[in-house]
Amino acid sequence: MPFINFNNLERVKVWEGITGTVAHSDTMTYARLRIKKGTVLQPHSHPHEQWTHLLEGRLSFTIGDETQILEHGMAAHIPSNVPHKIEALTECFVIDCFTPVREEFKKLEVIG
Amino acid sequence: MPFINFNNLERVKVWEGITGTVAHSDTMTYARLRIKKGTVLQPHSHPHEQWTHLLEGRLSFTIGDETQILEHGMAAHIPSNVPHKIEALTECFVIDCFTPVREEFKKLEVIG
Repeated sequence: MPFINFNNLERVKVWEGITGTVAHSDTMTYARLRIKKGTVLQPHSHPHEQWTHLLEGRLSFTIGDETQILEHGMAAHIPSNVPHKIEALTECFVIDCFTPVREEFKKLEVIG
Repeated sequence: MPFINFNNLERVKVWEGITGTVAHSDTMTYARLRIKKGTVLQPHSHPHEQWTHLLEGRLSFTIGDETQILEHGMAAHIPSNVPHKIEALTECFVIDCFTPVREEFKKLEVIG
């Protein structure tokens, strides 16, 4: 289906404190996620290139050795295999976009 | 720079009635665009895979022979080379994401 309603999709748990809705196209994975205040994702990396766009909240984002506080309308892009870390300073609402598809996101725990 | 503030970037004109801010990473182009009410983009296609995510407004989106009215939180993904058309039923605010990079978007007219 070429049309996705992120308001109605089943919610999945991506990580402790990170939940939302995820969809996949041929070469991209697209997710709309809520991040609980205080959630920390320690430095990690993946071959997928990633964009994170902040819709709501304040998110501390570290890519390599650069850190920035992201707010509404700000984005980060993470090149392939570059370590990155996040800390949610408030509850956050984000759009994440990855290429290629994150195959492991097709098997996430459904929470309703 | 891995961090982008779409609130501060120079605005470009993408098409008649479509303006906004555009940024590029290694393999993706990411744009936050306003579409003027009444704007119609006739069927067109490109090799880039595309996701359009509606932040605000009502956008009639046709992909192949399927049409859907997109509203807040809804998205469309357009496979490579598939014809698609839009009509803005109200002013719309969208996030577009493409892979690979839309090289021609690096030369758009800056409008301030």
